[in-house]
Amino acid sequence: MASLKIPELVPSAAEDSQQLRKAFVGLGTDEARIIEILGHRNAAQRKLIRETYQTTYEKDLLKDLDGEISGDFQMWHSFSIFLNPHRITLGMLLLFNSASAYNAIQMALQRVVHLWTMDPAERDACLANEATKHLPDNNCIIMEIACARPSDDLFKVRQTYHACYKKSLEEDISDHSTEDFRKLLVPLVTAFRYEGDEVNMTLASNEAKILHEKISDNAYSDEELIRILSIRSKTQLNATFNQYNDQFGNAINKDLKSIPKDAYLKLLRSAIKCLTKPEKYFEKVLRLAMKGMGTNEESLTRVVATRAEIDMELIKERYYQRNSMPLDRVISDDTSGGYERMLLALIGHGDL
Amino acid sequence: MASLKIPELVPSAAEDSQQLRKAFVGLGTDEARIIEILGHRNAAQRKLIRETYQTTYEKDLLKDLDGEISGDFQMWHSFSIFLNPHRITLGMLLLFNSASAYNAIQMALQRVVHLWTMDPAERDACLANEATKHLPDNNCIIMEIACARPSDDLFKVRQTYHACYKKSLEEDISDHSTEDFRKLLVPLVTAFRYEGDEVNMTLASNEAKILHEKISDNAYSDEELIRILSIRSKTQLNATFNQYNDQFGNAINKDLKSIPKDAYLKLLRSAIKCLTKPEKYFEKVLRLAMKGMGTNEESLTRVVATRAEIDMELIKERYYQRNSMPLDRVISDDTSGGYERMLLALIGHGDL
Repeated sequence: MASLKIPELVPSAAEDSQQLRKAFVGLGTDEARIIEILGHRNAAQRKLIRETYQTTYEKDLLKDLDGEISGDFQMWHSFSIFLNPHRITLGMLLLFNSASAYNAIQMALQRVVHLWTMDPAERDACLANEATKHLPDNNCIIMEIACARPSDDLFKVRQTYHACYKKSLEEDISDHSTEDFRKLLVPLVTAFRYEGDEVNMTLASNEAKILHEKISDNAYSDEELIRILSIRSKTQLNATFNQYNDQFGNAINKDLKSIPKDAYLKLLRSAIKCLTKPEKYFEKVLRLAMKGMGTNEESLTRVVATRAEIDMELIKERYYQRNSMPLDRVISDDTSGGYERMLLALIGHGDL
Repeated sequence: MASLKIPELVPSAAEDSQQLRKAFVGLGTDEARIIEILGHRNAAQRKLIRETYQTTYEKDLLKDLDGEISGDFQMWHSFSIFLNPHRITLGMLLLFNSASAYNAIQMALQRVVHLWTMDPAERDACLANEATKHLPDNNCIIMEIACARPSDDLFKVRQTYHACYKKSLEEDISDHSTEDFRKLLVPLVTAFRYEGDEVNMTLASNEAKILHEKISDNAYSDEELIRILSIRSKTQLNATFNQYNDQFGNAINKDLKSIPKDAYLKLLRSAIKCLTKPEKYFEKVLRLAMKGMGTNEESLTRVVATRAEIDMELIKERYYQRNSMPLDRVISDDTSGGYERMLLALIGHGDL
């Protein structure tokens, strides 16, 4: 269930484009207006706004948004801190330099508005392309796109990737990853899973046995194990994991915790979670992004921008169950300025 | 270049449907009319005829064609001889029983008309599904569909497969194949290759080295070798195979002939040929289908039905170069009746 709130009477794309243009001109940028418009339009509506904006002003709305929502220092250069796993967190910046902190907030706002305004397939292709440049650290982003999107959407990402980057997504993954990660990620992104509800219980039982055998032998990157995870439908896999639990007394992900800190096993567990209970996976990403001091804005932004139109209500429910705190309050505590307001709009906080 | 010939003035789909209906009613079937119409319409036109026929007569044109073009004995049962690699050939039947021979011709005609009338993606999904039931003998059919179709067409086959068979193509391949064949075929059918002309020569040189290293080690089903073949664009692969030739003095397919009769190596060589010079691959299939006594109607029908709208002119050219005989003459010698006439129509023999 989506969290995005759309007004009952949606202005025309022409009116929205005009209002956005007004928000850009003159001194300063009317961020509140940008958030009010884009934070309350679905993918089809945003697409139409971008097209209308392009036709009316002969300018790319995404580029104008980037230019208008910016700090003082060179943004794109600084943007790299989001992609660096050893990044300086927003909290740390606040302590040292309030000007830099302001800029960091603007960059975070710019990033969420940019990602959100993109067409979902274009956004995923962009996220995946950025991730391939920082593998293995960002392999979970590739995995998310491969496992948490419906089959047709994943295919659209692969199509868009061709158009944007003049090669295939699987080539970039393959060229930038190594060994076990490559063996797992390439089949996952090339999957086109059947999406019907049919379950073959005999197959589920047999494949649960195969998975258990491979896991017992520590053969975590075994070809057969990866094949099962990458060709079966999500419904079938769910039955297989249930069979695993019933036959061997443990959830499969518990048995995959033999070396808790192992990056490959962590990715494998995340893939299994993403394939069957994506809201659980995304709740955990959000929880870790806002745990303790500092915030991982990159993860927070990505999850909100990619799930607000999909299952953010489920993620919020799960978040509350798991943390006894509503997600909007935690986001409010961890973020500020326009960035906070945009995130809250997307997770459906407050009235329209 | 397609061999299919379409009249300058194409009748409307309604007229074509009406003429087909007329060919069915009364005693006997007007096969000449069926061939005259369907043998000279492209995929989009055939699609429209099927839709119009369905709307007008509330009947499935494919089923009516199957029913009207048939021999005396139970067709579908007998159809299995086409899929059996140890099939009785048409030539042998002629010697023993002329009634059976007549029926065999009708079945062959029925098969080519049926396959041809289908939408290309539906036809490929059907061929692939039949092939999965006779693996490893029919693994070349899966390989053809994976390697000789443009990326978008291969994806449409996978989509159609979901709709027709309630599972994914890769599941069926995986469930019915073993070891090395599975390791090769699953990545080939899940490919979505970039189709641009860009070539990275450094990559081509490096990957030629990797391929040579694996082949020298007899590691023909090595993960890296299969990965290169299944993720790179066809243009890039062509450059890689050229580099292989330049660097190591042999064409890659020559080095893959170490065990000439090995079925896996044969499939690997065919895949390489299909990826870079499909007309050469299909010429060979046709040559072998009509070599010596008897004819492999299944292969002949499949190649004509799947290539008439694609590159049959190139295949015919290549056939003439290689055999010093025009393809239409060899087809005329090897086939007869309506089957012969339909094949000749599709390969563009004679005037319209």
